Order: sequence, then structure tokens, then C-alpha cells
Amino acid sequence: MEQSSLIKPVLGGAYPTISHGQGVFLYDKNGKDYLDASSGAVTANIGHGVQEIIEAMVKQAKQVSFVYRSQFTSDAAEKLAGKIAELTKGELTYSFFVNSGSEATETALKIAIQHWQEKGKPKKQKIISRWMSYHGITMGALSMSGHPIRRERFTPLLESYPSVSPPYCYRCPLQLDQHTCGMACASELEASIRRIGSENIAAFIAEPVIGAAGGAIVPPDGYFQKLKKICEENDILFIADEVMTGFGRTGKMLASEYWDVEPDIVTLGKGMSGGYTPIAAAVMTKNVMEPIMKGSKSIIGGHTLSANPLSCAVSLAVLEYVERNELVEKSADRGNYLIRGLKKLAGKYSFIGDIRGRGLLIGIEFVLDKATKAPFPKDADVTNQIIELGMRNGILLYPAAAGLDGVTGAALIISPPLTISEEECAELLMRVDITFGQFNDSIGKRSSQQGSES
Amino acid sequence: MEQSSLIKPVLGGAYPTISHGQGVFLYDKNGKDYLDASSGAVTANIGHGVQEIIEAMVKQAKQVSFVYRSQFTSDAAEKLAGKIAELTKGELTYSFFVNSGSEATETALKIAIQHWQEKGKPKKQKIISRWMSYHGITMGALSMSGHPIRRERFTPLLESYPSVSPPYCYRCPLQLDQHTCGMACASELEASIRRIGSENIAAFIAEPVIGAAGGAIVPPDGYFQKLKKICEENDILFIADEVMTGFGRTGKMLASEYWDVEPDIVTLGKGMSGGYTPIAAAVMTKNVMEPIMKGSKSIIGGHTLSANPLSCAVSLAVLEYVERNELVEKSADRGNYLIRGLKKLAGKYSFIGDIRGRGLLIGIEFVLDKATKAPFPKDADVTNQIIELGMRNGILLYPAAAGLDGVTGAALIISPPLTISEEECAELLMRVDITFGQFNDSIGKRSSQQGSES
Repeated sequence: MEQSSLIKPVLGGAYPTISHGQGVFLYDKNGKDYLDASSGAVTANIGHGVQEIIEAMVKQAKQVSFVYRSQFTSDAAEKLAGKIAELTKGELTYSFFVNSGSEATETALKIAIQHWQEKGKPKKQKIISRWMSYHGITMGALSMSGHPIRRERFTPLLESYPSVSPPYCYRCPLQLDQHTCGMACASELEASIRRIGSENIAAFIAEPVIGAAGGAIVPPDGYFQKLKKICEENDILFIADEVMTGFGRTGKMLASEYWDVEPDIVTLGKGMSGGYTPIAAAVMTKNVMEPIMKGSKSIIGGHTLSANPLSCAVSLAVLEYVERNELVEKSADRGNYLIRGLKKLAGKYSFIGDIRGRGLLIGIEFVLDKATKAPFPKDADVTNQIIELGMRNGILLYPAAAGLDGVTGAALIISPPLTISEEECAELLMRVDITFGQFNDSIGKRSSQQGSES
Repeated sequence: MEQSSLIKPVLGGAYPTISHGQGVFLYDKNGKDYLDASSGAVTANIGHGVQEIIEAMVKQAKQVSFVYRSQFTSDAAEKLAGKIAELTKGELTYSFFVNSGSEATETALKIAIQHWQEKGKPKKQKIISRWMSYHGITMGALSMSGHPIRRERFTPLLESYPSVSPPYCYRCPLQLDQHTCGMACASELEASIRRIGSENIAAFIAEPVIGAAGGAIVPPDGYFQKLKKICEENDILFIADEVMTGFGRTGKMLASEYWDVEPDIVTLGKGMSGGYTPIAAAVMTKNVMEPIMKGSKSIIGGHTLSANPLSCAVSLAVLEYVERNELVEKSADRGNYLIRGLKKLAGKYSFIGDIRGRGLLIGIEFVLDKATKAPFPKDADVTNQIIELGMRNGILLYPAAAGLDGVTGAALIISPPLTISEEECAELLMRVDITFGQFNDSIGKRSSQQGSES
């Protein structure tokens, strides 16, 4: 391989070079096909190479790609903001556009703080968050993230620690029984608020379904209703981080709809453009914006490319595509189909500890022993091994952290484009089966090798 | 105006709606033309509506727009990284792609810290920076930024304070004489390092020419050589934030070339894609990357859309356009032309205190009194007034902070696309002259009004 100047996730690692993509398939330059069961990083929600999106992109580019939002507005940005207000229904009305999920949660954080400043409560600056969460990699976003592996190198620089346990019922952090616990993990928010003082807290942030930090952890019914009530009682804004879950990924437009909980601020990204351009958003209710609109009338926090017409036009075309093709409903259907298939595989392979998720955000947690739920040793590097086997078998899988400490667990996410057909779902399950079979053989082999060595 | 869901810089403010752009001109939906003398936010370096860029965009989009960098590499990303290594010459070899300048400086911060961790110096976590600087709006980037207005709302959350004075010779922060000062502001870095302890410091970050925080402040010759020497003597990496200055904006490929100083890390953005797509980069020397490549072999810090093929292909086309059309050289030439013209205007208008800059990054600082350099009162809101007059006269200008406290000063930046012709420069000067003339009349009027009132 010739010298590369491109920094990749594993330095010096070998990565196939992409040739092209079509639908749920990607093809490398050797002609090999990959079924994109991860939508890249849970992003390519409408699949690859969609002609309508390219056309919308070209149309806008021929007019103008970039204007600075302090100088002009654009039809593309106005329409996109309007479409988001329409799709999210209810009170989520005002969009602030940025380039990435990290920037979206940073923007949410800033607007939450400013909301209270303009209401004469400038001390409300802290953001409460949960362990097993991921809100982005910039310092503000990482501060809020309960993701030990990604925090580790920068802990001394991070402004805050998450203070609430996740609703990780498969391995309850509080060691309680799911049927009698009374959702003690939600009560922790109340305890945390009491310790810190609600007069110091601007907002609570959470992913409705936990993504990369936990492998599609779905909370029990009533959990988010309880959290929202605690937030309301304590004058604390609720930020739903729907960067991964938004726009149909979980079978609802927003995952928070599952529990009829309306966030004060929602962050969106990934599926918002399906990967066709970098764009993300923080969306606020009227209630959040009102004191700012009546007060300073200005939000500090734009990025140079915020609301650029090209990215907005592309995102708008993607959301229209999602609507027109009823991908939210399809996500729910296909998700049920895949979960049924995966549960069958769980019967076949002893290392599958848990299958969970909603719609096409499905998590699989791996264990050494199904009964005790004992995790694999960390140095077995199970998730990466399975993902590498999957690559060889032409199926792309997305890694997730898991386990009580967020380090020792092994999990992955299955999240194909919402456009996936039932035939393609069957093909997906077949490639997963082959991959799991090979992994099963390899751990069988290793056990017997260890046996013969001892 | 109908209800808008789009959050704009001034909430409830009226912004013209863009229709299209061509070259250095933008046109709103009423058919009015604007000479883009700001390149948006110092970004549209090759002007608007360039056909070659649209073609490169479509070509890549037809193959594939997005793949996840943990799964594939792409020709577009590899070639872009190679092109950056070639254009920046010397040792700057390895590119990490992100979506914005804020993300680029956050990435530089993280890689600097990791560099020392992998060399067994985990205590080196602090980043030293200067007042009158701007490195981005995410929390890590804002922590390093010496921009009081943008810090104000979030000061309790910011990890660090800038600790070094800027080389703002027009108003020396140390009240010294430029000819006898011995560049005491550079010596401040050494004092700062001694106070904090070099064993705690990972890097020093600075903009070669100060942008939005100061209005194109150019340091005296020898200043950066002195800073770099201090960094080297103290085992501290030098990060040059060239998000605004890079790719020819100042008449060199990188502004740091003016002083023959090679940064250990350089951040790039804005002109990197000319606004045609959100993309930015942190670029590292071999020396910075070596301990990581030999150590953990992995950098925590990617974003979902990092190195996406579409943005990389667009950026590559923009950089090839810059090279092919010799825009770096043109920037130097046209910059000289404009500075000459603006200096003539400075003779005509008493409120022009200083004209400064390099290439097509030109700053103008406004004063109430040219002799005493007394600033206008803050509530006169001079910069915004002039920018609004400019909008009316069909010329786009970019605001900058100025003044010793970064609050009371008034300045703006003139930074047209590097493609601007001499005729267009003349038109630019004419529209600036008209705008300044109207502003002059308005302050004349106001003084006489005040006179008649008293």
C-alpha cells in the first residue's frame, strides 16, 4: 500500500477503498459487495445513490451553495426549518442548524443556559446527564457523555460528570429487579437535582434509545414520563438527543414519541441528511425561545456553514423522501421482522445475551455465559472480531459499548437503511448467521486450543 | 413576513432571501446585487457558482456520497489528504477531516494532548492561547478563544482562560512602544509557561493573522519566530489556527509562511471548501503523529461525516481550482491594490483609525478621534451600522471585534473571493467609499443634532 496522508481510525490499518453505493449495498474497488446493515454510522437512512437527492443537490448548487446566515436567508433553510417543525409536530418549532451531532448538543447546551439567563436565572448552568450515553466528541458534548472509553484521555478537561444511571435493565446498575424497582434509576435524577441544587441546573439530556454507548437500550414504559415530570417540577429543560434516533430510525418520527414525552429541545443529525451532506440541528419549543426572543434577541453559537443553502436543500430532499416513501412505518415493520430473525439466532448461539431495540435500531449484546451474563474478557475484543468477520462476509455492523462499566461489555448495532426490503432483510440475517457461525467456531477452537495448551 | 421556523442571528430580524450567486456577486430574490467583499464569513475563496466544483460534486455523488471512515477509505479522502500535504509543504503530512473550524481546533487540542500521553507525559493537558483570538464556538474551542463577547455567557463552564496578550501594536496591551518593546507580548508566553509549568502544557494555539477577534491584526516580523522558539524550548506544540488564513487568503498558501515558522499542527477550514460543503481539518507533522502511530495507533475524535467522500471531492476540486488559477499569488496582488485604495479612503474619512492585513484579509478599525485613537461609544454600534449601510449599497462586509477589551472597539474585515478582478476591486472600493460617506454624514448629522439639542 502506498503512503497515505489520511488519518484513519486504526493508524496503519487496511481499509477497503469504496467504489460506489446503491440502495443498501456498497461496493469496494475490488468489486466486492457489502450489505450496509449499519447505515455507516447509523446515518444512511435512505440508502446510497438516491437519484432524487443528487438532483436536489445539483439544483441548489447551480443557484448558490453557500451564503453566510448573518447576511442572507434562503428558501432551502426556511423550508427545511418548516419541514422539521411539521414532522416533529407539537411545540418543537425553531431550528438552529449546525454541521454535526456534536455541534447540535453543544448548541442545545448553550441555548438551555441562555434560556435561563434571559429569565433572570444566570446560575442555572449545569447540564445533568446519564452514564451509558454519547452526545458527541467536542469538549462540551463529551463532558455530558457517559462514555468512559471516549472520556478517558480528557477527563481532567471535562466540565462535568454524568450523574444518573441508565435504564439498562439487562444489567441493572442498581442491582434491582425490573418488576419491583419502581424505576429507581429515574428517581436518581431527582436525587441528583437535590444534591446539585435545581437553581444551578439548566437542563437534563438523554438519548430516548441509547445508541453507541449501550447498543440500543430501550427504557421501560413510564421511565421518560417520570423523568419529564421531575424536570418540570424542578424548572429544568429536557433535551432529547435524537441525533441517532430521529427521523424514523426507531419506527417513530422521533423516538420520544413512544412515551408521549415532548422534549423542550431536541437534537437531530445523522439521518437528517442520510449522510448526503454534513448537517444537524437543535430544535426548540416556543417556550424555550420566548425569553430569548423577548430579551437579547440573539443566540451566540453559529458556525460558518450553519444553514448553508446546499446542505439545507439536501436535507430537505432527504426528509421529503422519508415522508413520501413512508419510511417511518417501514422502519417499524422491518425492525420487527429483523428482531424476530435475530431472536431465532439467539437460540442458536450461546454468546448472544440480549436482543433489543425499536424499529431499525437493534442492539445485540454478547456474553461468555448466557445464564450468568458474564462478559467476555476485555482483551478478547469480541465486538471488533465480529465486525471484522462481518466485513469479510460482506455485511457492515456498527460497534457499541456495553457492560456496567462501559468498557468490558461487547455489543453491536444492526441499523440498515430504512429503505431495506424484506428480501434484503433475509439476506442480512443470512450474512449475520454466517458471521456468528464463524465467530462461534473461533471461540470453540480457542477453547479447545486453550484446553490442549493447559 | 410569514412565520419563520429558522433561527437567525438577530431573532425577528429581516434578512434578504438569496436567489443565486456568480463570481464575486450574490443576488437576492428582488434582483438586487451584492458585491461579496466578505466571502460570506471569509469563506467563499473562489467565489460563487463555479461550474467545475458543481461537476466534481455531481461526479462523486453519483458514485457515493457517504461512507463511514471506520469501514472504508475513499479516493476522494486520500487524494485530498495528499493534496493538503503537498500544498502545505514541509512536514505537515497527516490530515484528520472534520466538519467545521470549531471541530478542527477541538481535534488539534485532543491530538496535542494524546501526543504527550503517548510519550509518557500525561500531565501535559493545558492549551495556552492569546486574548483577541477566536478558535471556535464549541466548548473546547471557546475555552481557548480570547473573545470576550462570545465567552461571556459561558465563562463558568469554560476550561481555560487565554493568558497571553496579542501583538496588537495599534493599541499595545502592554502600553509599550513598538520600536523599543522587544516584543514583550511574545515574552509573555514564556512567563505564562513558567507560571503554569511546562509539564502541564500540551500546546500553544494562535492565529497567524488575527481574524474576527481583532480585524486582521498582523504581528511584527520576528514575533512568531520568537514564539516558536519558546515553544520548542519548553516541549510545547505550536498549533497554528489557519481556518481563516489558510489556502491563499493572506497571499501565501499558509499565513505562517510569512515568518518561515512551521506549526506542529495546523487547523484548516473555510476556504478549504470555499463554502461548497462543510469540511475542515487538523493537519499534523510526522513528529506529532509518530508516538501515536507507534503507541495506541488510534485517535479518539472522529465525527460521523469525517472524511465523507462527497465533502472531500468538493474540497479537492476547490484546492485544485486555487492552484490552477494561481489564486494565492492573485490574493497578494489584489490585496496590495485594495490596501492602497483603502489607505486613500483613510485620508478622506477621519473615523478610519487603521488599515491592516495581508493579501485579501484586510482589517479596518474605526475611531472617534484619529489622533487619540479614542473608540466610539459602545452603544453607537458603529460596526453594525456600517455593515447595514453596506448591505443597502450592495456590498457585504464582515464584522470584527477590536479594542483592548475586545468589546468597545469597532472594526470590520474586507475579504473578497481571491478570484476578484481589478475592475471588481475598483467597484468594491467605490461601494465602500459610498458607504463610508453615508456613515460620515450620519455621524456629522448626529453631532450637529446633539449640538442643536444642547
